[in-house]
Amino acid sequence: MIVVLSGGVGAARFLEGLAAIVAPDQIAAIVNTGDDMVMHGLHISPDLDIVTCTLAGVIDRAQGWGIAGDTTECMQWLGRLGAPTWFKLGDRDLALHIYRTARLRGGASLSQVADEIRRALGVQVQIIPMSDDPAPTHVITDQGELHFEEYFVRERCQPAIYGVRLHAAGPVQPAPALLPLLTNATAIIIAPSNPVVSVGPILAVPGVREAISSTTAPVIAISPIVGGAAIKGPAVPLMQAVGMKPTALGVATAYADLIDGIVIDSVDAALAPAIAQLGIRPLVTDTIMRGMPEKMALARAALDLALA
Amino acid sequence: MIVVLSGGVGAARFLEGLAAIVAPDQIAAIVNTGDDMVMHGLHISPDLDIVTCTLAGVIDRAQGWGIAGDTTECMQWLGRLGAPTWFKLGDRDLALHIYRTARLRGGASLSQVADEIRRALGVQVQIIPMSDDPAPTHVITDQGELHFEEYFVRERCQPAIYGVRLHAAGPVQPAPALLPLLTNATAIIIAPSNPVVSVGPILAVPGVREAISSTTAPVIAISPIVGGAAIKGPAVPLMQAVGMKPTALGVATAYADLIDGIVIDSVDAALAPAIAQLGIRPLVTDTIMRGMPEKMALARAALDLALA
Repeated sequence: MIVVLSGGVGAARFLEGLAAIVAPDQIAAIVNTGDDMVMHGLHISPDLDIVTCTLAGVIDRAQGWGIAGDTTECMQWLGRLGAPTWFKLGDRDLALHIYRTARLRGGASLSQVADEIRRALGVQVQIIPMSDDPAPTHVITDQGELHFEEYFVRERCQPAIYGVRLHAAGPVQPAPALLPLLTNATAIIIAPSNPVVSVGPILAVPGVREAISSTTAPVIAISPIVGGAAIKGPAVPLMQAVGMKPTALGVATAYADLIDGIVIDSVDAALAPAIAQLGIRPLVTDTIMRGMPEKMALARAALDLALA
Repeated sequence: MIVVLSGGVGAARFLEGLAAIVAPDQIAAIVNTGDDMVMHGLHISPDLDIVTCTLAGVIDRAQGWGIAGDTTECMQWLGRLGAPTWFKLGDRDLALHIYRTARLRGGASLSQVADEIRRALGVQVQIIPMSDDPAPTHVITDQGELHFEEYFVRERCQPAIYGVRLHAAGPVQPAPALLPLLTNATAIIIAPSNPVVSVGPILAVPGVREAISSTTAPVIAISPIVGGAAIKGPAVPLMQAVGMKPTALGVATAYADLIDGIVIDSVDAALAPAIAQLGIRPLVTDTIMRGMPEKMALARAALDLALA
């Protein structure tokens, strides 16, 4: 199994490319659930849904999240009833949240539900939440401590960030499949996802760092930072808030005790020697995934680096 | 207050007429919750929603239930996920169920939620569930004991009926507003609703029969049976199953210990003397509510009979 530590949009696109060049049933995505929240009484799992719907081919490609062609009738009526509407939920999208919530209340684990949904949508890549326990990521801001989605969506990343609190609901256990997958992986790939709020919550699950450190399999990352900026989302201020440099070198440094190699973008070629100094093999290539050819090329580069 | 004991479609149409000739804030509908059920983890209140949406002017008039112009994107995706789809839920419609479920889980009572929803939709008629407790109506059939909606919607009224079990989840308490409303009513009107599964569950709430029997206010009914047939729904087999005659006289007999008068349809004029023999004043008029003029005329006839 090739195991991919995965956030949302960037990871999903990378996984699409990987699933096109490797047998999909030989890939497992371990997905961040730090963005999960309960909204309107429904359990919403943004990254699980982005990964699942992208691999199912039903994602809204323009947005990177949500289901293609979706409508917002329910949301508009929730608004009429006075419910908050800052987190957009499409009508098709809601089916996933309603199904998940009903199954969880019926006693199923998040792992079971994630597996049911990906199978129902015809996804062959295994999709595993990092934990079946609530593990919300909070952001400490000048407007107080916010859930990540409150900071990201409701407040549009405007508040100044002083810090990040992972697993803010208390201790979590790894999902049952997680540590065995890491231990038995042929390669572990850290997707081009936010190192603080997407990969960080996965690495903070008890046993994950130890499993990755002790594996004999290659471990590589793909930098989500290109030319000192994030492809998407608030990685730069979040990295700065926790003392990371928002560069490909900063990403490599953050993962230095875990990875053997890192894929960085051609625009960051000058950082390669400094990365090599850390004992990490850099691979320099184009990393922006505009379409399927770029996704596949990036996946191939990552595999080359890992299995070289 | 004019208090109306209310089922779904027939009662909602009658209430529309009544609210057009009496100040709406002087009307209270006490609504059957025997059809309520949990589906996809959501608390669904068919009769509360039919009454509320009809009075809000947003009902799908062709069906008599659901919201006008609604779509079924969520339902189709629930089907893709393997969830049951026999009970159609529109996307707008779902907003009511999601809102209600979230509020109930947050500790609100069904009475509170019903009031919040009717206010949000601009309804001035008070809408009160018969009870804040679960009170499902079961139908005993040749296919076993079914929830009323399973019999009515899923099985399309095909099974033979042997009996009806009201409040099948155990004892219920009246909603807080219920008995005071009945005690202080200026008139009590039993809407043209199914006497067994719409009005029956309300009358079976502890204290309701006693409050109606002891009031000095006039109590009248409108027969939902016209010419030996129901305007809508399975009233005939349900009445037969519990030993009532499926005629306007049968309806009058079922309510004989409660009502002072009953409105029956012109086609049933021949039954008037037998009804009078029961000590019940019959009023014979056209009762089929095709449009607003007929709804208002029926409301006026009911008020004439009650307040004469």
